[in-house]
Amino acid sequence: MGDDEGAVIPKRLPSLESLTVEQLGTASLPSPLIQRGQRFTDEAHRVLLSPFAHHLEEWLARNEKPPSFEPAGPRRNLYFPPDKVSCGIVTCGGLCPGVNDVIRSVVLTLRNGYGVRRILGFRYGYAGLSSQRHEDPVFLEPDELKRIHQHGGTILGSSRGPRDLGDMVDTLLRWKVDVLFTVGGDGTLRGASALWEETAKRGLKISVIGVPKTIDNDLMWVERSFGFATAVQEAQTVIRAAHSEAEAAWNGIGLVKLMGRHSGFIAALATLTNGDVDFCLIPEVPFTLHGQGGFLEALDKRLEERKHAVVVVAEGAGQRLLSEANMEERDASGNIRLEDVGLFLKHEMGQHLTSRGEDFTIKYIDPSYTLRSLPANSMDSSFCLVLGQHAVHAAMAGRTNMMVGFWNYAFTNVPLQVVVGERKQIDPEGELWQRVLGATLQPTSLVGR
Amino acid sequence: MGDDEGAVIPKRLPSLESLTVEQLGTASLPSPLIQRGQRFTDEAHRVLLSPFAHHLEEWLARNEKPPSFEPAGPRRNLYFPPDKVSCGIVTCGGLCPGVNDVIRSVVLTLRNGYGVRRILGFRYGYAGLSSQRHEDPVFLEPDELKRIHQHGGTILGSSRGPRDLGDMVDTLLRWKVDVLFTVGGDGTLRGASALWEETAKRGLKISVIGVPKTIDNDLMWVERSFGFATAVQEAQTVIRAAHSEAEAAWNGIGLVKLMGRHSGFIAALATLTNGDVDFCLIPEVPFTLHGQGGFLEALDKRLEERKHAVVVVAEGAGQRLLSEANMEERDASGNIRLEDVGLFLKHEMGQHLTSRGEDFTIKYIDPSYTLRSLPANSMDSSFCLVLGQHAVHAAMAGRTNMMVGFWNYAFTNVPLQVVVGERKQIDPEGELWQRVLGATLQPTSLVGR
Amino acid sequence: MGDDEGAVIPKRLPSLESLTVEQLGTASLPSPLIQRGQRFTDEAHRVLLSPFAHHLEEWLARNEKPPSFEPAGPRRNLYFPPDKVSCGIVTCGGLCPGVNDVIRSVVLTLRNGYGVRRILGFRYGYAGLSSQRHEDPVFLEPDELKRIHQHGGTILGSSRGPRDLGDMVDTLLRWKVDVLFTVGGDGTLRGASALWEETAKRGLKISVIGVPKTIDNDLMWVERSFGFATAVQEAQTVIRAAHSEAEAAWNGIGLVKLMGRHSGFIAALATLTNGDVDFCLIPEVPFTLHGQGGFLEALDKRLEERKHAVVVVAEGAGQRLLSEANMEERDASGNIRLEDVGLFLKHEMGQHLTSRGEDFTIKYIDPSYTLRSLPANSMDSSFCLVLGQHAVHAAMAGRTNMMVGFWNYAFTNVPLQVVVGERKQIDPEGELWQRVLGATLQPTSLVGR
Amino acid sequence: MGDDEGAVIPKRLPSLESLTVEQLGTASLPSPLIQRGQRFTDEAHRVLLSPFAHHLEEWLARNEKPPSFEPAGPRRNLYFPPDKVSCGIVTCGGLCPGVNDVIRSVVLTLRNGYGVRRILGFRYGYAGLSSQRHEDPVFLEPDELKRIHQHGGTILGSSRGPRDLGDMVDTLLRWKVDVLFTVGGDGTLRGASALWEETAKRGLKISVIGVPKTIDNDLMWVERSFGFATAVQEAQTVIRAAHSEAEAAWNGIGLVKLMGRHSGFIAALATLTNGDVDFCLIPEVPFTLHGQGGFLEALDKRLEERKHAVVVVAEGAGQRLLSEANMEERDASGNIRLEDVGLFLKHEMGQHLTSRGEDFTIKYIDPSYTLRSLPANSMDSSFCLVLGQHAVHAAMAGRTNMMVGFWNYAFTNVPLQVVVGERKQIDPEGELWQRVLGATLQPTSLVGR
Repeated sequence: MGDDEGAVIPKRLPSLESLTVEQLGTASLPSPLIQRGQRFTDEAHRVLLSPFAHHLEEWLARNEKPPSFEPAGPRRNLYFPPDKVSCGIVTCGGLCPGVNDVIRSVVLTLRNGYGVRRILGFRYGYAGLSSQRHEDPVFLEPDELKRIHQHGGTILGSSRGPRDLGDMVDTLLRWKVDVLFTVGGDGTLRGASALWEETAKRGLKISVIGVPKTIDNDLMWVERSFGFATAVQEAQTVIRAAHSEAEAAWNGIGLVKLMGRHSGFIAALATLTNGDVDFCLIPEVPFTLHGQGGFLEALDKRLEERKHAVVVVAEGAGQRLLSEANMEERDASGNIRLEDVGLFLKHEMGQHLTSRGEDFTIKYIDPSYTLRSLPANSMDSSFCLVLGQHAVHAAMAGRTNMMVGFWNYAFTNVPLQVVVGERKQIDPEGELWQRVLGATLQPTSLVGR
Repeated sequence: MGDDEGAVIPKRLPSLESLTVEQLGTASLPSPLIQRGQRFTDEAHRVLLSPFAHHLEEWLARNEKPPSFEPAGPRRNLYFPPDKVSCGIVTCGGLCPGVNDVIRSVVLTLRNGYGVRRILGFRYGYAGLSSQRHEDPVFLEPDELKRIHQHGGTILGSSRGPRDLGDMVDTLLRWKVDVLFTVGGDGTLRGASALWEETAKRGLKISVIGVPKTIDNDLMWVERSFGFATAVQEAQTVIRAAHSEAEAAWNGIGLVKLMGRHSGFIAALATLTNGDVDFCLIPEVPFTLHGQGGFLEALDKRLEERKHAVVVVAEGAGQRLLSEANMEERDASGNIRLEDVGLFLKHEMGQHLTSRGEDFTIKYIDPSYTLRSLPANSMDSSFCLVLGQHAVHAAMAGRTNMMVGFWNYAFTNVPLQVVVGERKQIDPEGELWQRVLGATLQPTSLVGR
Repeated sequence: MGDDEGAVIPKRLPSLESLTVEQLGTASLPSPLIQRGQRFTDEAHRVLLSPFAHHLEEWLARNEKPPSFEPAGPRRNLYFPPDKVSCGIVTCGGLCPGVNDVIRSVVLTLRNGYGVRRILGFRYGYAGLSSQRHEDPVFLEPDELKRIHQHGGTILGSSRGPRDLGDMVDTLLRWKVDVLFTVGGDGTLRGASALWEETAKRGLKISVIGVPKTIDNDLMWVERSFGFATAVQEAQTVIRAAHSEAEAAWNGIGLVKLMGRHSGFIAALATLTNGDVDFCLIPEVPFTLHGQGGFLEALDKRLEERKHAVVVVAEGAGQRLLSEANMEERDASGNIRLEDVGLFLKHEMGQHLTSRGEDFTIKYIDPSYTLRSLPANSMDSSFCLVLGQHAVHAAMAGRTNMMVGFWNYAFTNVPLQVVVGERKQIDPEGELWQRVLGATLQPTSLVGR
Repeated sequence: MGDDEGAVIPKRLPSLESLTVEQLGTASLPSPLIQRGQRFTDEAHRVLLSPFAHHLEEWLARNEKPPSFEPAGPRRNLYFPPDKVSCGIVTCGGLCPGVNDVIRSVVLTLRNGYGVRRILGFRYGYAGLSSQRHEDPVFLEPDELKRIHQHGGTILGSSRGPRDLGDMVDTLLRWKVDVLFTVGGDGTLRGASALWEETAKRGLKISVIGVPKTIDNDLMWVERSFGFATAVQEAQTVIRAAHSEAEAAWNGIGLVKLMGRHSGFIAALATLTNGDVDFCLIPEVPFTLHGQGGFLEALDKRLEERKHAVVVVAEGAGQRLLSEANMEERDASGNIRLEDVGLFLKHEMGQHLTSRGEDFTIKYIDPSYTLRSLPANSMDSSFCLVLGQHAVHAAMAGRTNMMVGFWNYAFTNVPLQVVVGERKQIDPEGELWQRVLGATLQPTSLVGR
């Protein structure tokens, strides 16, 4: 197969049933979009999960319907009455270019598209849905959001970690929220799903709609996530700086740590588009430091040849090499707290070169906070616009417990349960990684013997 | 359906036969990529033309195979012996961010991947294949191309227009070229197809492989073309300038002309991601100037409300309004020579406001040459890298008379005949255009009565 | 002498008397800045006009005091009572990066520094002081101006051209304005001086303070003007585009017109910092087109050698070559309306090369509106901040009919009459121009025989 | 006084004698620049050290000549014969935007201006002049340097720290170097002076010319140093990121460390041009953390009011607060090794807020390596061009033991002894710092009781 970001069809394909999106009840109200001549999404249509004919034939041979997604898009009939529905939006997790674009798009679509009046912004992530934080939500008005997409960050604030579900649902009730849009990554979406279950348990008719946010580009069923392109673009400046630093010193090493907790897409793409990177280390491809065939041996050889080297490492790479003890810790979101692989590599390279009696200089750059706080570039910005619109379309039609996906170049409605179970990663035997190896000319394996 | 750039499945679907790629002969040589552990594309696989289940069911109901593309990618068996094959590359038409990336990728893949020795760069487009221009091709070496992707333009030069086919084939023979990579748009690919037919007529075994280049993003079966994202990004700076100019003057009008001869994708996407545009005019959506419901009436109303307006116009918009006489002329490529719609609109708006006795200022900006001469951004750059690799894979396997496509997020091998016949355009009733209308709040129709 | 922008000490040096700034009356109120520990400018201090010892000795030999400026800066004693004074600000002429920075600085200094309450922004330049335009001024509050410096243009709007003086003074009286800050160039400052004279004639005690704005960097006694650095920086992108276009075509010519009505500083500095420019044409250095030694002959030679050329031309260059008839026209500001030298050169080069039977391509880029609408870069932005502060300091102390200058790296108070009489230009025999000649390797003279 | 970067006339003024530049011998060869119509610097001219009339009067009252600098610039008579002289160039210390511009300018001026043939580039700073590092110098040719100014870093490499003087002089002799250009800061210039003394002791006629390089802008008699403007510009991106991070979290603190070992110019200017900074901490202005009136109290108050804060700290600020023990260490250049004040502040703020039971988030960004590795912006780039030219002019005329300075907006020749003795710093009672206080609204003093 051939795609530029190396995402693969997962081995364990979800069934057609598991891809059916939950619906709060009958959607019978006419959409106000009819008046502006909107074309609506045909409820009978489906987006195939795999665009490959041979996959299709396998399903047909088994006399099964091939798995497919519900297409995203505006529906002719709505579940919620636009003039009465009350909507909330919350942004969670780390910053990512484009969050303000999503907020703006959701609010503009609700107000200008559907005529929704009451739109609440909960502050500081799920913490803003907790009764412990006495910070009231703000009422969002289109006019105030006019230029927020030109600035990074999130005007609503964010936080990490889950909160008490019952308490959060109480907050939604207190503020009379019928629809909650949650913008976030894996943990946030898991929280959204749990929140929905809590509302369902209580017999509430609340729509919970996820908007996928992952600068690492590691969510399943999202071919490309917003903020990723911006991060890769700006990583160029940093890698060029590392290259300048490396070239300017005898045995100069420029070491850049890029985002990528479990998936090395940013590191890989930044490496591909740069041309000066000598080593790219990602979570999906294990490596060792010492011994024949290990990273340090390869580094020695590169320094020998060129007197400098540029190393790009994803933050989640080489975790096995870090002490087991530290891996126990978990950060507030429940993610495994990663050691700083950059500082670790800097230290190990330093020790190694010192032990060899070499003169050397290592410059370590960690641009993470700068990259994730940028305004979205145009590509990401327009993507956010559409994500926000589709989130609103889905909510108004009464969908819930779902996320807006992007697959086969089509926007889709995806049940949360098939998103949170899996992770999109680089296939170490796939095209993308082979391209990286071709670009860096690093050894195919850095696992020493 | 839901996609961010509004491309639609064309009404007239090509048949499976017409999607079969031409092959010069049996590919029986083992690929040298085997040694580096490359996974190869399975010859039995196909990429469906439509990812929609309901399209599929229509085909199956008719007992026909759904149309599908050959996936791009490296093949286990080659037609050309890498150590003996001689390759040429030519870049044609207007500049576009990323052309140097493609050249670099083709050369690096040929040399570092396959071990091809003889790689010729023909200068100044098809003119360099003509015997009239006494400019010899240059031999391309990877070392010299190390940083060319950081600069805009094309190191090979370019030109427009067709040349004598026989003469061009003679040149290929004189330089012993077995494979010709042509980087260009609609006209260039038409030329490539004609060139291949001429070689076939003479019984020559020459592979002609197209790499799609269209900053307008208007080639069929190419979901996203390189240079497009860079152009949209940089158009922001210009539109913001136009907005500043407009706001700073009483009845200030900022008028920006963007590229888009037949398709308004750049204008539409730039409008969406900006937020300050009041009117977006594209070739696909006709408009009139005068009378009730026409553009000037809407402009008056906007100026009345806000005292300034920003107008984005694609270069091919409003052609019907320009004098018939001038439409006869054709530029060197055979394209219809367009009048400058920007100057035309500036003049018409000026006359109209003068006749109304209004004080006004119009600032007209045409950034075309600056946008198209930029280096590619990361997204475009990595896309070019892959396009170049797939072009080489196809050529080495003996494919010919084809272009590398990108459809359903998969890279494909597409016969040239199904590319040059059609054009990708914005559907005036589709999602993309509805988004633009929502962003500008311009009237749904600007065709006056 | 040696400075990087080539400004020279003018031949006709002003006398000490002409450099004495007008004062509305006795300044006897204690400055509120005393409370925050401000150090005040010593009224006895002066900034020498020339920093050269030999100039000094000439004056001393003649037993005369060397001419010097009053230093800008906060005074211990004020003329206006901060709690009662009413201030107005107006921005005139073409856009320039940094105007919003100046507005913000003036308002913040008035309010936060001095505690001034009533600050009016007149809309659309001097037109906003005219009774004919029924657009009331706006009250400016610091909170609303928080981020205006991150955007180009001017939030107040602008216009060109003078208005009726009596009418403007009436408007000032109607709005009870005691201090008027005028941000603008040569024409604006001339207007400010006339306005002050009109108030003086009527016996009014109104302070008129100019803030020099000239993207061309052509005001006398201003070593560096805001917006200039930003414009030169961004001109690089355009010149690189022109270079890419030129290189990509057989006999490709990239032609860039940059701002510079009477002084070629932008063209010269942009040429120096680029390295790819082959010809730089400025108003101060005449040239001819035809004949031996003319521009076209030099162009032919350059094309012969390199097959492409990059030409940078200041908008005011080569005016003598344009038809006399057109030079009669004047634009609204009373400036001589210049023909577009870019279109003229494009046409002349085209005719010349056509007549020689050459194949060629000329790409003409005019980025003026984009450059002047940018937000200021840091250097310009901090310069604007200080200009605004000094304008306020001067006004509060009762100075009038003056402009804030920058000379010998010191900020100064400069009487308007010594500013408007002269123009800062590039000395064709000075260092700056010699550097340009060294960078382009163009002939020392392009005046043909 | 009024200048935008707050440099002050030092209290201890150098005498006229100490400002006299060393000359290797009689300059009697005619300059080849005569042929291209160059105007030469008049040997009788001098640039006053102070441009203030009252300073002048003090000197005159004492019947002394006011101290003044020799102006930089081309001389009519040369000491070295251009066709025989052999020149070397070495770049030392940390990276700084513009070093490649200086190299390019020196080489182009030597070759294209004077016709010098033999130009050597010593690799990796003074280490390249040491016999211990077996890395031969490279011969520099203008053609190879064409685009180096578009890239950051230094093509020659760099290193820190002094080397054995005798050994270095031996290297100069071995390579027959008559002129050595050293590009570097305080330590480098001190080394250059020592090197010259060693050559003088041996009776050698070697010219040693310094080009001032300090991204911190802290060299005396250099009003503005190259790389500084670029660093301040790019610091904006980082501070905006810190602001986005801070705003997005409950009690969010964005902490940015900027370059400035002994002088806080970068921190101060970046703060001024940003508008979002709440605290600016620099080496020149002491502060304490704890107690009434200390930094942490002020921080609490700011968080109370705004729920977030942005802190910019110069790397050399607050050194007194760091443990005495660590201050003993010295880095390779002999500079005091500074503790990382950023990590220190992050830790102290964290402890303080934790002890108060506050929920908070601190994001610490250190962009130093990225800022210093950028290509120079236009302003810096053209400044480098002129510095390089003047370095060459001085060397060819036989000047030695000097540096090219920039004072009163004029380029000067400055004896090294008056440079290395002093440091340019921000005056805590001067205008610049008052502006910073006005911009941040931080308390005038952060020294707690």
